[in-house]
Amino acid sequence: MEMKKVTAFAPATVANVSCGFDILGFAVDSLGDRVTVSLNDTNEIRVTRIEGDNGKLPLAIDKNTCGVAVNAMLKAMDFKGGVDIELYKGLPLGSGMGSSAASAVAALVATNRLLGNPFEKAALLPFAIESERVACGAGHADNVSPALLGGFVLIRDYHPLDVIPLNVPRGLYCTLVHPHLVLNTADSRSVLKQHVSLKDATTQSGNIAGLVAGLYQEDMELISRSLNDVIAEPSRSILIPGYEEMKEAIKTAGALGCGISGSGPTLFILSPTEEIAWEVSRRSQAVYEKVGLPIDVYVSAINTRGAYVVEEKK
Amino acid sequence: MEMKKVTAFAPATVANVSCGFDILGFAVDSLGDRVTVSLNDTNEIRVTRIEGDNGKLPLAIDKNTCGVAVNAMLKAMDFKGGVDIELYKGLPLGSGMGSSAASAVAALVATNRLLGNPFEKAALLPFAIESERVACGAGHADNVSPALLGGFVLIRDYHPLDVIPLNVPRGLYCTLVHPHLVLNTADSRSVLKQHVSLKDATTQSGNIAGLVAGLYQEDMELISRSLNDVIAEPSRSILIPGYEEMKEAIKTAGALGCGISGSGPTLFILSPTEEIAWEVSRRSQAVYEKVGLPIDVYVSAINTRGAYVVEEKK
Repeated sequence: MEMKKVTAFAPATVANVSCGFDILGFAVDSLGDRVTVSLNDTNEIRVTRIEGDNGKLPLAIDKNTCGVAVNAMLKAMDFKGGVDIELYKGLPLGSGMGSSAASAVAALVATNRLLGNPFEKAALLPFAIESERVACGAGHADNVSPALLGGFVLIRDYHPLDVIPLNVPRGLYCTLVHPHLVLNTADSRSVLKQHVSLKDATTQSGNIAGLVAGLYQEDMELISRSLNDVIAEPSRSILIPGYEEMKEAIKTAGALGCGISGSGPTLFILSPTEEIAWEVSRRSQAVYEKVGLPIDVYVSAINTRGAYVVEEKK
Repeated sequence: MEMKKVTAFAPATVANVSCGFDILGFAVDSLGDRVTVSLNDTNEIRVTRIEGDNGKLPLAIDKNTCGVAVNAMLKAMDFKGGVDIELYKGLPLGSGMGSSAASAVAALVATNRLLGNPFEKAALLPFAIESERVACGAGHADNVSPALLGGFVLIRDYHPLDVIPLNVPRGLYCTLVHPHLVLNTADSRSVLKQHVSLKDATTQSGNIAGLVAGLYQEDMELISRSLNDVIAEPSRSILIPGYEEMKEAIKTAGALGCGISGSGPTLFILSPTEEIAWEVSRRSQAVYEKVGLPIDVYVSAINTRGAYVVEEKK
């Protein structure tokens, strides 16, 4: 059944999960974007309102990630009507928490319900990837997949797309630490070495295999030992003040491990309990006071449901 | 309780399992080595008999893998007596089926029982790795771990050793194809490139993550899609006549995938049913008749119990 107005929520996501560089992402609870969609009496998609972006996001539908995603979806189903999109940003822009992905996915889930669910949830993924092409210059799937599906999601391959939801151990918590600094994604890419030693490639393989096994076995110790990225972190962490100090501080707090969320500057820290995740939050405040950078900190369970409809009006 | 005479069996193993190059091995049923041990009234370890090796294996205990392994074990427990070792080879030498590992592991499991089980099974691993140092020049764990523990075993790290037994999906079968040719392990190592592109390293990570997820989810399709090695196979498969033809033949037979077992020349092929594993066996005969190389073929379930005692006398 078609609706008159639907609002959906999509969560923040962590991509490049340590040794899962470029292939693994996960979603966090409670933090994310909301999108409200309604039919209009034109045959156009319009972004009619954006809140929480300090005026920084474009309204043009070929530049706004919601617009691009919904446009791709409507084209695929040959829908002739028009849709109005209102975007309520809960996520900071350019923070590495999957902000553009959350907007696009929320818009897709809301529009799908608006039109009577013509698509299975997972079938919305290609439209979200299309929107990432506009936002990031490349059609990454490691934010949009967990934003849509929830939990830990492996992107095994892109050609063809092979997206594998993994098990989420009970009790796993995440702390997100967002230092207030601007990182250029292009810089973050350019520091990556384009070749790695066979030894490092093998070490990375061992760790991602251990991490996946740890997620299925719900073995927090194994997850902790495996959270070690020898490929991207060594060059990228240099761009983030306080990274080494954070790594040291979270270890003694009992956290499992940490990494750079997406291409930064946000750090994610995984903990085996909510209590430790809060202790990590306190310690990160102390670390960044010394560094002299203001931060925002979020503590959250892993989101296992992905994006969802929060309100609908017939 | 101590025994007078104990015989143990250890299975053949496949190391370098496709995208699990250098980090993943598994054990196969029914094919392997047997070792009989008994106390002697000297304070020496002696290899008193070897059958099935065509006279090729050394009797000297610092060169024979059984001798090295048992010596390391007895030293660790400060045992002063002597042990006689008889080795019955079921595995061909230098075939890539973990022949030296099977001998060492069978000797360790038999001697452990002979002396009243002073060690937990997994605690025998370092002694087996020590013997691999003698047999291969490097202390690899990817044959001895599955030979001892059974199933699929991930070697996440060596420093310190971190060995993770993984889930084995029901129904999984293996075909081993051993073409009669001699491959030098040193050659097999030297063709490996010491650097890989970031893209290939990421692809390999995605595939090993997918393979581990597939083993836990018992998802044969996912296992099949993930059995793809972009790092070692492209250079190593050139050394093995018939490899490309085999790859083509097993695909149409319904097998999940294939790879080079260890450093070859044996090929392993994984199948979702016993029936398909036998069909693969027949097709490999046809392929190698054309190539003009004699082969031995073995069809087997995955061994999930590892090495075990087959006979003991008080």
